[in-house]
Amino acid sequence: MTERNTTGAAAPADTKTLKVALLGAGNVGAQVARILLEDADVLAARTGARLELVGIAVRTIDAPREVDLPRELFTTDASALVRGADVVIELMGGLEPAKTLILEAIEHGATVVTGNKALLAVDGPSLYEKADAAGVQLSYEAAVAGAIPILRPIRDSLAGDKVTRVMGIVNGTTNFILDQMDTTGAQFADALAEATRLGYAEADPTADIEGHDAAAKGAILASLSFHTRFALEDVHCQGITSVTASDIAAAKDAGFVIKLLAIAEKLPLPAADKGAAGEARQGDAGESGYGVSVRVHPTLIPRSHPLAAVHGAFNAVFVEAESAGELMFYGRGAGGTPTASAVMGDVVSAARRMVLGGPGRTETTAGVLPVLGIDAVTTQYYIGLDAADQPGVLAKISALFAENGVSIETMRQTVHRERGADDDGAPGLAELRIVTHRASEAALAATVQAISGLDIINSITSVLRVEGV
Amino acid sequence: MTERNTTGAAAPADTKTLKVALLGAGNVGAQVARILLEDADVLAARTGARLELVGIAVRTIDAPREVDLPRELFTTDASALVRGADVVIELMGGLEPAKTLILEAIEHGATVVTGNKALLAVDGPSLYEKADAAGVQLSYEAAVAGAIPILRPIRDSLAGDKVTRVMGIVNGTTNFILDQMDTTGAQFADALAEATRLGYAEADPTADIEGHDAAAKGAILASLSFHTRFALEDVHCQGITSVTASDIAAAKDAGFVIKLLAIAEKLPLPAADKGAAGEARQGDAGESGYGVSVRVHPTLIPRSHPLAAVHGAFNAVFVEAESAGELMFYGRGAGGTPTASAVMGDVVSAARRMVLGGPGRTETTAGVLPVLGIDAVTTQYYIGLDAADQPGVLAKISALFAENGVSIETMRQTVHRERGADDDGAPGLAELRIVTHRASEAALAATVQAISGLDIINSITSVLRVEGV
Repeated sequence: MTERNTTGAAAPADTKTLKVALLGAGNVGAQVARILLEDADVLAARTGARLELVGIAVRTIDAPREVDLPRELFTTDASALVRGADVVIELMGGLEPAKTLILEAIEHGATVVTGNKALLAVDGPSLYEKADAAGVQLSYEAAVAGAIPILRPIRDSLAGDKVTRVMGIVNGTTNFILDQMDTTGAQFADALAEATRLGYAEADPTADIEGHDAAAKGAILASLSFHTRFALEDVHCQGITSVTASDIAAAKDAGFVIKLLAIAEKLPLPAADKGAAGEARQGDAGESGYGVSVRVHPTLIPRSHPLAAVHGAFNAVFVEAESAGELMFYGRGAGGTPTASAVMGDVVSAARRMVLGGPGRTETTAGVLPVLGIDAVTTQYYIGLDAADQPGVLAKISALFAENGVSIETMRQTVHRERGADDDGAPGLAELRIVTHRASEAALAATVQAISGLDIINSITSVLRVEGV
Repeated sequence: MTERNTTGAAAPADTKTLKVALLGAGNVGAQVARILLEDADVLAARTGARLELVGIAVRTIDAPREVDLPRELFTTDASALVRGADVVIELMGGLEPAKTLILEAIEHGATVVTGNKALLAVDGPSLYEKADAAGVQLSYEAAVAGAIPILRPIRDSLAGDKVTRVMGIVNGTTNFILDQMDTTGAQFADALAEATRLGYAEADPTADIEGHDAAAKGAILASLSFHTRFALEDVHCQGITSVTASDIAAAKDAGFVIKLLAIAEKLPLPAADKGAAGEARQGDAGESGYGVSVRVHPTLIPRSHPLAAVHGAFNAVFVEAESAGELMFYGRGAGGTPTASAVMGDVVSAARRMVLGGPGRTETTAGVLPVLGIDAVTTQYYIGLDAADQPGVLAKISALFAENGVSIETMRQTVHRERGADDDGAPGLAELRIVTHRASEAALAATVQAISGLDIINSITSVLRVEGV
């Protein structure tokens, strides 16, 4: 079945054959199998090796699948399949048995390609180390932002530069929901229902809407960008379930759009930590005195920012580097065929190296920069308030910001006489929209608490972070 | 001077040293030298080798430079410098002596990194072959789209996919000029003067505004995207000098923006050529029956297209691939520091391979797809006409489109009574804006000629191609 020599341009007779084992035939796996079978000649010409799909491990052989694949390729004995393979493509997802099978593949010296972000976010560091120790290549471009080539550019193309910040829209489900809310004015629940109806959200959308999926990808992006290994627990994570239609409308009104961003950035160590961290942990040479924070949260960004134009279920990663400046990578973040493209890029690169010889892995996690918590981060903040419309309100609120060391960049007041006013002359309602300069979470929290104690405040309608201004 | 061991995280004592020769200390070269000197420790940690800058070849040792570099590094004997180097970074630009020095480097077995798109567009194919034959690595990420990692993603990340089309804003000068015209309504000459004043255009802007620079980059992009080698003469090239403020205004009015795009696309061979081309040239396996066309011209794209949001001197490359779908890569296309980032990415990748072993080059130009001329291309067209406002005009014009096999997608008419009407009752002026469906250049040219022969036509104000609808 791999002998589809239709063009006369097949590889020469002495072409090496590489045995490829596929674990999983879901959405992505089925498309990878199809490409391996249909494009066997193209792949042979590009790698110098025949990529022979020797089997597909699945739980149920007769399950319905998106692609019609030869029945004889299917097996339920994943372990036996792995032991006979040169290249193992793991697309089962989940922690087990994926992890055990990847470890078996490493042990047998097989090259591993995986798209399993959940596993990498939890066990990535130990898997990379085992692969390194065994001299085995472990690639995972498909684990972040689907079809978008992002890991290889960060690892190789920016290898001579210093990344300072990465901001990614790395979850298509939440981007679809927020984009729906932004374009139609829908509430979160309605936009989620629409995403479910269109197949952008799973039956249980928790991992997406709570930001867990974005956090896993953020950990992987941060690891490569900062040559330091991050795990899921290092990521501060806040989902989009509390974002309301009125948050979106107010943001829109002020020239912003709300996106769920995974943000990894290099920050100077807090003064108190410098000595200890500098001794205890060894930074990438020349980068001591810095740490890295990784966070996922709904974020206001200006409508003119390149990330603001990323609509629907598309993904994009915005990278800032010392020399390169601003870069953005945009494309489909999910879907069987797009993700299969990323998987196959890893497979072809691995095959070329196996044919031509070469290093298994070329990323370096040479240093370990200290992992910083959200308390080390400063961002701008957007705060929405409903206050009584009476003289001196702005002065009182401004004073509380100043007392807590939070500086105000812009403050907009809209007075609604009709809403709060009544016959006995009670004051109208003033909607205040405040954007601060950069402030720490602690300073902002103290400010918000102080303000909420004022008797002239009806409610604090939203507190959201702002980036990219 | 490379012993800047400030962090305690330097590479171990047995670290290999690679001798790096830099040819050229201009805009980009000076920044590369600075990074090699300043970041020596980081680079050693990332590559496992000390990258020792052994010399910088320049024409005039005492010329003023942007970066203060140690005088003892400079030499005017480029040839001697090349002979003693492990890695040669060529950033002189121009055809000679760059070509001779690169050939000397290849002959001596040195790895070569270059950003010289002019040389690659003219002599790339012969240089790649000589490097291949010598088993030497030749990298050139900086030659296309400055800091944007585009060549490596196309070569490696999309290696298991099939690119169908690449559209790039790859010249920052022309993008700046067109963006100025779009945002301010300026005429071409004024926008060019502004670009010159701000340093975005050179004293002699010919290579930029006539599209030659974009054509050279288009040839390189096409070569990697389609695993086929293209030279500059294969690229159909039209610059932006004839784009007027009224073209831009009309395009804006119709929801389009005008960009200078380099477009490379895979097209079915014209029926007549199939036999001959199929025999005479060997396509990438599985791709016989196809050819590739590369062209540069001003192009209308919808304002909702991701490329439309690329402003100022930024660059972006939009890639369509069979599996991946739509991808876009965005960033700074020029400038010393951004371009130096791309050069250093190549240098670090090369150094890693020299330390760890591995294949010199991994791109494959396994097949040679036939090169198709502009006559094989179909695009949508935008045509602006000034006609007499009298009954039957639309019918006459529509009939001529139909006779020539060009189908109309939209036609908008704006009547200006005040412009053409006079006291003796002569007709007013009708401005027609027509967007066609896809048509060949020949069919469109025949249509335009037929229309220009109508006595009711005052003038054909513009004929421009449309993509991305």
